[in-house]
Amino acid sequence: MEESNIRAEIIAVGTELLLGQIVNSNAQYLSQQLASLGIDVYFQTVVGDNERRLKQALQLASKRADLIVCSGGLGPTEDDITKQMLAQFIGRGLMMHEPTLHHIQQFFKQRGSTMTENNARQALLIEGSDALPNDVGMAVGSALTHDHIHYVLLPGPPLELKTMFDRYVKQWLRQRMDEVTPLYSRILKFAGIGESALENQLIDLIHDQQDPTLAPYAMEGELALRISTKANDETQAERKLAATKQVIYERLGKHIYTEEDVTIEQVVTNLLHQKERTVSVAESCSGGLLSHMFTTIPGSSAMFKGGVVCYTNEVKANLLQVPFAILEGDGAPGAISAECARLLAEGIISLTHSDYGIAITGVAGPDQAEEKSVGLVYIALKFKDEEVQVMQYKFSGNRAMIKLRAAKMALYLLWQHLHKA
Amino acid sequence: MEESNIRAEIIAVGTELLLGQIVNSNAQYLSQQLASLGIDVYFQTVVGDNERRLKQALQLASKRADLIVCSGGLGPTEDDITKQMLAQFIGRGLMMHEPTLHHIQQFFKQRGSTMTENNARQALLIEGSDALPNDVGMAVGSALTHDHIHYVLLPGPPLELKTMFDRYVKQWLRQRMDEVTPLYSRILKFAGIGESALENQLIDLIHDQQDPTLAPYAMEGELALRISTKANDETQAERKLAATKQVIYERLGKHIYTEEDVTIEQVVTNLLHQKERTVSVAESCSGGLLSHMFTTIPGSSAMFKGGVVCYTNEVKANLLQVPFAILEGDGAPGAISAECARLLAEGIISLTHSDYGIAITGVAGPDQAEEKSVGLVYIALKFKDEEVQVMQYKFSGNRAMIKLRAAKMALYLLWQHLHKA
Repeated sequence: MEESNIRAEIIAVGTELLLGQIVNSNAQYLSQQLASLGIDVYFQTVVGDNERRLKQALQLASKRADLIVCSGGLGPTEDDITKQMLAQFIGRGLMMHEPTLHHIQQFFKQRGSTMTENNARQALLIEGSDALPNDVGMAVGSALTHDHIHYVLLPGPPLELKTMFDRYVKQWLRQRMDEVTPLYSRILKFAGIGESALENQLIDLIHDQQDPTLAPYAMEGELALRISTKANDETQAERKLAATKQVIYERLGKHIYTEEDVTIEQVVTNLLHQKERTVSVAESCSGGLLSHMFTTIPGSSAMFKGGVVCYTNEVKANLLQVPFAILEGDGAPGAISAECARLLAEGIISLTHSDYGIAITGVAGPDQAEEKSVGLVYIALKFKDEEVQVMQYKFSGNRAMIKLRAAKMALYLLWQHLHKA
Repeated sequence: MEESNIRAEIIAVGTELLLGQIVNSNAQYLSQQLASLGIDVYFQTVVGDNERRLKQALQLASKRADLIVCSGGLGPTEDDITKQMLAQFIGRGLMMHEPTLHHIQQFFKQRGSTMTENNARQALLIEGSDALPNDVGMAVGSALTHDHIHYVLLPGPPLELKTMFDRYVKQWLRQRMDEVTPLYSRILKFAGIGESALENQLIDLIHDQQDPTLAPYAMEGELALRISTKANDETQAERKLAATKQVIYERLGKHIYTEEDVTIEQVVTNLLHQKERTVSVAESCSGGLLSHMFTTIPGSSAMFKGGVVCYTNEVKANLLQVPFAILEGDGAPGAISAECARLLAEGIISLTHSDYGIAITGVAGPDQAEEKSVGLVYIALKFKDEEVQVMQYKFSGNRAMIKLRAAKMALYLLWQHLHKA
């Protein structure tokens, strides 16, 4: 990580984090946002609702950071002490912020109830700080500079924190940081390739990285690569990023399905919409996950006609017309076979009259099936009257990962077909 | 949080955390685990792959903690420096751990490739530390005590970290901490009730909590309540917890589906197995999510026959025999109606010959459908020849939450039926 002018530290306040009751998604969000503003985060700290230890954390952070962003501890209870401790630490008082108090009173009034005393705590502001409005909650945020250090206090509920950061904090920070060289990033998203295969293909770029830097990461069965550079403006950034991107496209272009931070199901649904085509699915080992992915996208009902989760051979035979002779008996290929996948894809098109039919059948584990090993999966894709395409895979991972990888691979096959045709 | 004998600090090492590329789920897991061992976590820290700042974090933690658990930085690359920095900090050397080196060599051999030099880094161990085997990866973990402080070093990949903690770290810690008063917890899991309704019912217990303490938390559409107390042994703990549990059962017993940390789909699948009953589902607005939940459970193929994702009226009519007169036309109840839900549940039983049939139809949003408002959902449950049961709900939240709440509510209805019959 290149050293920049601004060193930031994130302090999340809340005993629920130290008990592991919730994950610190606020720190992740704030880190992403600060990185995109060109600010380097050097530490994230989590501390409980404890006066002594919170003060200790503030003291330490003020010695090693130029910007301290706190989340949590702005609420109405006596456990909420972030403002109080920072005020003590920098030797300022607290005052009532009348617009926020009014906002809270209105909130209770609209619900036909009276504001209790403790709720007024949420309208307290450290003297000399800028109020950050809370458009989706009650506790006011604040931003101030003391002794050359910037402090930003944000509420703990993620929606409130994000809304406040996006609408008010970014702008506040930018005004104080025009001397910073911002970081420009591009994201490339990959499908149909594993993480280690991707890293092997790009090992020279990842290892020898100066500028731009490459950061591959995997999440929820998706694979992404972030390419970043510090530049004075968009034009300079584009020039610095273009050469690296070209090398990556030359090596792995057929796996890059988008340059935006969206899922492959989103991209596929958009393409189906553009080309006015419909799809339906027959799922055995993926067990409904592919249908669930399609239907996660708003408006997918126009493209996705439906599916059959054919978990038993009975359902494969009765609903999707796979002959029992294929499924069972001596010498039959079985339910986990290329033949069965092909018939399922044809069967689901016959049933629903969709343009595309996708079928997935395999062994998700943990046990073998039909004496076939865990991770063996067949995926069939049929488009109208074209010849059906059947692929065989050997996925690694546990049951959940195999389901996920199978469903994402099916989306990749569909994307490839939509992309070229 | 009561002060205990052991103060722990978690240090997660990795620049990817400071960039916000991943969320610090390891800290959450470790916090939960340490709490359940009766160890109080006072700080979580995140630091990048940077020698100076990691050493600074170790120095600080060693001043304020008795137990320091580090995650990450044990891998093969030059960026992986956790062992090296701790060794420097406590003034010990690094030695090759031969069993781990052999394990890594075997791993490469089985894949028909040769181990590269850098992979040997993963077998290095700090002198005088206990090796923690990595049963699902390559980097060895380590545990040691220096100057009265316990250090535990774990790999960053969550599966490796969890497996190592569960199999080796717990035991290592227990041997060193028999003087601690342990924390005993019970978990109650709820279904068919919202978070705020649950809190309202238990507000007196949650607010006025001394001992036992109550911590409600929601995740992935599940609602849980952790009840904790410190006690000398299981018998004393049980006595302290029993009275509180009784009050909760009196008020909310019909919503408590288990006292273990398992999902409702797991509990329902177990009950189906015990009672030798099968189920199949017809999903409209939940779009395959309920099927996906069932098929997440290993062995569910014995109970779950399959499903139809009937996203269009065509599929509802052609596959599940809902008359078009019900679905469309002037004065028809429409696809989002109690009548349609009932017919879908009957239809899926006819198709698959399962004992239970479940149907879900509604408006997941973001747009209205059939001029019915977002969140309106009908769920039908039919068991053999019994009268079909149809419930109407109004769920809040976005599209993803409505799908999730509908699927979980369907599981709750099935649980209720299995529980009493």
